Amino acid sequence: MTEKPCVDVALVHAPVVNRNGEVIGSAVTNLDLHDIARACKTFGVDTYWLVTPFERQQILSRQIVDHWLTGHGRIANPDRGEALSLIRICAGLDEAIANGRKKWGGSLRVVATCARPRPDTIAYARLRQQIHTGRPVLLVFGTAWGLAPEVFEKVQVTLPPICGAGRYNHLSVRSAAAIVLDRLLGCKDGKPV
Amino acid sequence: MTEKPCVDVALVHAPVVNRNGEVIGSAVTNLDLHDIARACKTFGVDTYWLVTPFERQQILSRQIVDHWLTGHGRIANPDRGEALSLIRICAGLDEAIANGRKKWGGSLRVVATCARPRPDTIAYARLRQQIHTGRPVLLVFGTAWGLAPEVFEKVQVTLPPICGAGRYNHLSVRSAAAIVLDRLLGCKDGKPV
Repeated sequence: MTEKPCVDVALVHAPVVNRNGEVIGSAVTNLDLHDIARACKTFGVDTYWLVTPFERQQILSRQIVDHWLTGHGRIANPDRGEALSLIRICAGLDEAIANGRKKWGGSLRVVATCARPRPDTIAYARLRQQIHTGRPVLLVFGTAWGLAPEVFEKVQVTLPPICGAGRYNHLSVRSAAAIVLDRLLGCKDGKPV
Repeated sequence: MTEKPCVDVALVHAPVVNRNGEVIGSAVTNLDLHDIARACKTFGVDTYWLVTPFERQQILSRQIVDHWLTGHGRIANPDRGEALSLIRICAGLDEAIANGRKKWGGSLRVVATCARPRPDTIAYARLRQQIHTGRPVLLVFGTAWGLAPEVFEKVQVTLPPICGAGRYNHLSVRSAAAIVLDRLLGCKDGKPV
């Protein structure tokens, strides 16, 4: 792929579920901003949407981002600002979807990630191929114990769970996002996967 | 691969380099323990070595791990303890290498990771194949701005930098470790990569 991929990432803090399957809102964490923004920048993601309906959390997130874009962080570590400049804060996933459709047209595919198997899955290789032929995609990640059921009503397909040696599948969302972006957009040994 | 891979991971806090290339020691961070332990558990890693020569840092790391193994964390989130139980703390990389040789024999391959290209590289596909035929491997990751030159004297080969769309390659070590483990040990769509 020579052209920039049409891929956005959304990290949803509400609605998500807790360990008991109850629908909740989670708190923004500093390293979710940094780690996922750095992975997004590495793999050519256009916008990293931070989705939280809580106004105080939006203000806090804005302060963290601004520290690296215009505050002391800009001088201390300009690479970090380059990554965090991809972040846009919004109250709900609908805004990220609407923005993607506006900039890339109606063919935007909204793709969820989930640690549990779901019926409506798309293979990594197939989605990768679609991205590399120019299909715009919004990748949706959930914090806490994952996306709430109502979020899956907004998505067209879901990527399969990331699996390894056994049944343990409790990756952090930071690790999951890095792996998903690498599988869809990474190069191996300097060549496309 | 049906049998458990013979793979250890080491996260080196000293000697590493800072942004100016000076050899330093870095501080242990809580999420390096959690995120990398969770990725190690997911992908079947045997031991996750936390390498720091600083005694106070070793004590702090032990306290964090113990919280999840025997403290309140054990009840609050037993999955976390399962991952953190892979952690062993040591003062230097030599201890991790010696332990690997003791449990798996002299054929242990010590493999570094680096964000900059190096001459002595091994392709991901080749190392993956070697691991899947039973070759024992110790994967070495550096904190801060990466492993110090003297660490590369202890390793046999280095994995190529993780690359994406452009020149930006400032992934967090947590993201890099997740991607490397997935490339070497992950399954895609339920099948080996």
